[in-house]
Amino acid sequence: MSVVVRNPPRAQRAAVEGLSGFGVATVHEAQGRTGLLDPELRPVWQGARVAGTAVTVSVPPADNWMLHVAVEQCGEGDVLVVAPTSPSQAGYFGELLATSVAARGVRALVIDAGCRDVAELRAMGFPVWARHVCAFGTVKETVGDVNIPVVCGGQLIEPGDVVVADDDGVVRVPRLAAASVLAASRAREEREAALRARYEKGELGLDIHGMRGKLAAKGLTWVDHPDGTSGEQGAGAAS
Amino acid sequence: MSVVVRNPPRAQRAAVEGLSGFGVATVHEAQGRTGLLDPELRPVWQGARVAGTAVTVSVPPADNWMLHVAVEQCGEGDVLVVAPTSPSQAGYFGELLATSVAARGVRALVIDAGCRDVAELRAMGFPVWARHVCAFGTVKETVGDVNIPVVCGGQLIEPGDVVVADDDGVVRVPRLAAASVLAASRAREEREAALRARYEKGELGLDIHGMRGKLAAKGLTWVDHPDGTSGEQGAGAAS
Amino acid sequence: MSVVVRNPPRAQRAAVEGLSGFGVATVHEAQGRTGLLDPELRPVWQGARVAGTAVTVSVPPADNWMLHVAVEQCGEGDVLVVAPTSPSQAGYFGELLATSVAARGVRALVIDAGCRDVAELRAMGFPVWARHVCAFGTVKETVGDVNIPVVCGGQLIEPGDVVVADDDGVVRVPRLAAASVLAASRAREEREAALRARYEKGELGLDIHGMRGKLAAKGLTWVDHPDGTSGEQGAGAAS
Amino acid sequence: MSVVVRNPPRAQRAAVEGLSGFGVATVHEAQGRTGLLDPELRPVWQGARVAGTAVTVSVPPADNWMLHVAVEQCGEGDVLVVAPTSPSQAGYFGELLATSVAARGVRALVIDAGCRDVAELRAMGFPVWARHVCAFGTVKETVGDVNIPVVCGGQLIEPGDVVVADDDGVVRVPRLAAASVLAASRAREEREAALRARYEKGELGLDIHGMRGKLAAKGLTWVDHPDGTSGEQGAGAAS
Amino acid sequence: MSVVVRNPPRAQRAAVEGLSGFGVATVHEAQGRTGLLDPELRPVWQGARVAGTAVTVSVPPADNWMLHVAVEQCGEGDVLVVAPTSPSQAGYFGELLATSVAARGVRALVIDAGCRDVAELRAMGFPVWARHVCAFGTVKETVGDVNIPVVCGGQLIEPGDVVVADDDGVVRVPRLAAASVLAASRAREEREAALRARYEKGELGLDIHGMRGKLAAKGLTWVDHPDGTSGEQGAGAAS
Amino acid sequence: MSVVVRNPPRAQRAAVEGLSGFGVATVHEAQGRTGLLDPELRPVWQGARVAGTAVTVSVPPADNWMLHVAVEQCGEGDVLVVAPTSPSQAGYFGELLATSVAARGVRALVIDAGCRDVAELRAMGFPVWARHVCAFGTVKETVGDVNIPVVCGGQLIEPGDVVVADDDGVVRVPRLAAASVLAASRAREEREAALRARYEKGELGLDIHGMRGKLAAKGLTWVDHPDGTSGEQGAGAAS
Repeated sequence: MSVVVRNPPRAQRAAVEGLSGFGVATVHEAQGRTGLLDPELRPVWQGARVAGTAVTVSVPPADNWMLHVAVEQCGEGDVLVVAPTSPSQAGYFGELLATSVAARGVRALVIDAGCRDVAELRAMGFPVWARHVCAFGTVKETVGDVNIPVVCGGQLIEPGDVVVADDDGVVRVPRLAAASVLAASRAREEREAALRARYEKGELGLDIHGMRGKLAAKGLTWVDHPDGTSGEQGAGAAS
Repeated sequence: MSVVVRNPPRAQRAAVEGLSGFGVATVHEAQGRTGLLDPELRPVWQGARVAGTAVTVSVPPADNWMLHVAVEQCGEGDVLVVAPTSPSQAGYFGELLATSVAARGVRALVIDAGCRDVAELRAMGFPVWARHVCAFGTVKETVGDVNIPVVCGGQLIEPGDVVVADDDGVVRVPRLAAASVLAASRAREEREAALRARYEKGELGLDIHGMRGKLAAKGLTWVDHPDGTSGEQGAGAAS
Repeated sequence: MSVVVRNPPRAQRAAVEGLSGFGVATVHEAQGRTGLLDPELRPVWQGARVAGTAVTVSVPPADNWMLHVAVEQCGEGDVLVVAPTSPSQAGYFGELLATSVAARGVRALVIDAGCRDVAELRAMGFPVWARHVCAFGTVKETVGDVNIPVVCGGQLIEPGDVVVADDDGVVRVPRLAAASVLAASRAREEREAALRARYEKGELGLDIHGMRGKLAAKGLTWVDHPDGTSGEQGAGAAS
Repeated sequence: MSVVVRNPPRAQRAAVEGLSGFGVATVHEAQGRTGLLDPELRPVWQGARVAGTAVTVSVPPADNWMLHVAVEQCGEGDVLVVAPTSPSQAGYFGELLATSVAARGVRALVIDAGCRDVAELRAMGFPVWARHVCAFGTVKETVGDVNIPVVCGGQLIEPGDVVVADDDGVVRVPRLAAASVLAASRAREEREAALRARYEKGELGLDIHGMRGKLAAKGLTWVDHPDGTSGEQGAGAAS
Repeated sequence: MSVVVRNPPRAQRAAVEGLSGFGVATVHEAQGRTGLLDPELRPVWQGARVAGTAVTVSVPPADNWMLHVAVEQCGEGDVLVVAPTSPSQAGYFGELLATSVAARGVRALVIDAGCRDVAELRAMGFPVWARHVCAFGTVKETVGDVNIPVVCGGQLIEPGDVVVADDDGVVRVPRLAAASVLAASRAREEREAALRARYEKGELGLDIHGMRGKLAAKGLTWVDHPDGTSGEQGAGAAS
Repeated sequence: MSVVVRNPPRAQRAAVEGLSGFGVATVHEAQGRTGLLDPELRPVWQGARVAGTAVTVSVPPADNWMLHVAVEQCGEGDVLVVAPTSPSQAGYFGELLATSVAARGVRALVIDAGCRDVAELRAMGFPVWARHVCAFGTVKETVGDVNIPVVCGGQLIEPGDVVVADDDGVVRVPRLAAASVLAASRAREEREAALRARYEKGELGLDIHGMRGKLAAKGLTWVDHPDGTSGEQGAGAAS
């Protein structure tokens, strides 16, 4: 009953490349606050940002045989997305597999289990988002599936979907939504750039967004502290 | 029933600046081992050390509206201290809000919930201590309070208190105790400097502190290992 | 009933030095997948790799008196291995103790409890693997034991055993097995170097290890995606 | 963009009723070890076993408005399956909602968030599987979706699927697989009944399954303990 | 600097007794969703509901000496509330202390640490809410404080406050608010009783609360499932 | 390299039976606060208390083949103690294996991994202490060891050791220490019985143990609350 699905459709490359310029938080907002993987999936080293197309792998607990099978299905711009069929802390992936998939153009690994060889991966610049870091390896005894829909970090991911990851976590963009989410991300980023410029000058969100009336309507009141002396410190706090 | 308290008294600036030169562990010891926030509040990027005066914010779960309200109450040398009224993993704070509060001189955020835009915050050099990193954002629907006493990381924090934070965590110093805790921190640091010099020369705490008698009185005995050969390795271990 | 055992036999220095050149994952595999400490013991700063001989310390909860006692038993090339008799988050160890043990040639601390002064330890280059980072200190009231067998991170560690640690975690090598595990690590590393070279050229593990037949025998099948177009993206994925 | 889907097809009632006679572990094995929800979803009171058809609800964090919407979509034999769009500990469901859904024949709630009124639910006999117990309630401000596919406890669940739950946890059976999984569960149960009878008589799995040869082939050996005296205790242990 | 405060004012007995008739969820709502302790504080045995006046104890980690001190300050209708100054899993309280405090009329213990003798406590009918169950005991070496304000389960509790606890958790009612929170709890319970009666008859919250228009205004739409047949199962689901 | 050790010496039956009359907390104290397993190993159903002799099993992750091997080594009065070589949440043990080992007189299972069939085990009265409850089963592919020393719940357990378990957790008594720990447990229980009687009469530990002087010497002081009125409530609290 195990299967390797070859050549699933992948999200359009231009959209993927475009999304690689945005952070996970931006993309997540831009697609209506959907698709965020469990925040417990963390980068094993910090500072990377990637976007790529998912090659999905469903693996048995503590058995990484299917990762070797999956390598052949990977190409330039892919991201390996690995979900165990039951929770496993084991280190499914290390420097050797990273070498193998990097040779095919794979950009990152997202795994809802363990990873090892963290120092080597950082030295190689190969980014991994994982639930665990664990030197305990795996066996190669049981088969699983490649390029079927998987649930990874609590999100359904289909082969060919876009995966965007950075220090904030990992978000999935459905394959067919990639272009529209890219457009929405750009629009959001433009709005934020304008906002950032105003914030840098010291303008307040309260004023920019006209929040004062709404806040008062919800019952918020402002009072002076009975013991406060605006001159003691924090003069900027005087309104 | 929601309120924003303006101009609470703040700890004296000189004491705050003085405390910024000490680590959390030192300050915590210096004030009698009190005030340490839950160690699960961790820096989202490592290497910062700050001290500042608390502007406290009580927020509903997954709703960051009150952070925008709080910005106006912040001034030079403040630290935002945010506590949700029920546990929330959501990312309340990111690069835009950081830009806004940095423009007012805020030095850091301490939040008993989630934060996002970690890469951008690190690039800006804006330090955050948080319980979670989570790209999932918040809404702006419900009001809360600013500059009321809050429980953050299990500690009661009042507006104007000093908050000291580094890679070890976060500690609160009561506003009126700032000067005395600073003096105690200095005294402690001086003792430690003397001790450090002796340790560097290889002196033992056992001897410096005259512990041998007390240890023996408590029933500690020293025996040679039956198979030990002091020459095999670790000659330094031979007494 | 408390005892300090002096001069336990230590693993041979040459083997220890040899093991310091290998990662935890390699050593763990080389000794038959045994000896890995609980992956929750993490480096407090990343990037170090050490091997050394264990000086073991059994400590009461939140009491670090015995660390001062243990210093005297340490020598060049040792690693302090500390296990509390009941779980404790407290920070048993900081910069001062690190100064003291570094003066005796100790290479690292492994502790199934808390550590503090993370910034100072990183600046000193003194590596620590710990279950917690916590600024809360300890008392000096109750005695424990030095150089008795301890369970640390779920593994039995005897004084003089080798401890290897890196960003992946910590592994224990029994004292008398050090030379054979070193040989096995070298052999493994050589095999991996050959494999790495082939992976870099793009060869597949599937082919190198002749896995295809075994996979098919286990019931794995390959099918093309019904909607797939190998030309859309990821040409490398076409087999 | 929020939607309530009315009258989704449901699994056949006969298959659902049949499945209610089997435990989660049996059903999970019978369908090839798939569909188990995260074991952290636990019964809030122990001793119940149910099977029913899923009415799925996607809810915002800490907002239970959509549960009120979902009630109308529920009928006899259904199980409410609730997944928040971001993690929430809040108590979405209590005795009042239980009264409302029980009046429509709903058998249980499965929720990847919090539940409250545990004592009342136990007294009513209304079973709930939840990730958290939490008295903190929710708001009614934001809409979500009913009867769309959701990921709950890490499993994709579609409306009309069968959900089986007991003290071991919760398993999902796809709607169209219900009859075949029932048949497989029955077959498994019959085999186990035969096995149970032999175990009760003291026969060993080693012999019943002819495992001794395979174990020896894998390298397992049997030796007598050097200090053992089979007469000291545990006569049954003598082989 | 340690102190035992004698005879703090306590909440009025009539209000306390009245509150003992309401669940934690009700009381929490009735006082504006404030005062809930961390849901990780769980009953060590289920089925109890109590309300009482807090005698607060601040204890060192793994040291229960102050509990013996606190006994003398307890009287009829009190609840012991214990908070360690740093996290501790140790079992501070067991059957003997329960016997001692029960003899003085104490109704329960709430402790942000460990408890032991669970079987005996259940047999005695003495309820405990604790963060941990742990057979590891404590020492009696360091003093703390009785009847000072403490932070327990993340909430500030003052001596004489009311503590209400049941299977859902623990909530604190400020001493002076007891009567008004009791009144609000009664009012809420009356509203809920009316609602319960309507729910039992099958009325929907959607109709009772007139939610349909608001939901539609927020963008919620209802559609029929394309494959749905309302007759297949769940006739009650047909609207 | 895998081995089954037959007929290890077991602790004397009389001592084991004697220990079955004491709780885990008592036994743990009686042997000097040693041997307690990680408190996260909890009973899957509450209310049992057992003592028995350990048959130890070292198992691969998610593979329960060795449990079938271990059955043959079990006899009347044994307790199975199972430790995986890497963390595993899988359900290694259920009703069928319980039937098999119960037929040989085994009293309980202690497992540092998962268990399933909780409802059936409770109905059978077969007690299990486990780290997880998980319906996900295991495979039978890899061999391990029986009756070698294992680390379970962080404690070293040798075959033939005594294991005592109740609702508080699990404690290990070394085989040769069983008689002396039994005697110490009896002595402790007698002291506690005397104490219990005095506590029931309302005597205070403060007086029975003469603690007042020591407390004062440590700096504890008693003061009256400024607002306190001993007559308001809690008359018993008046000293």
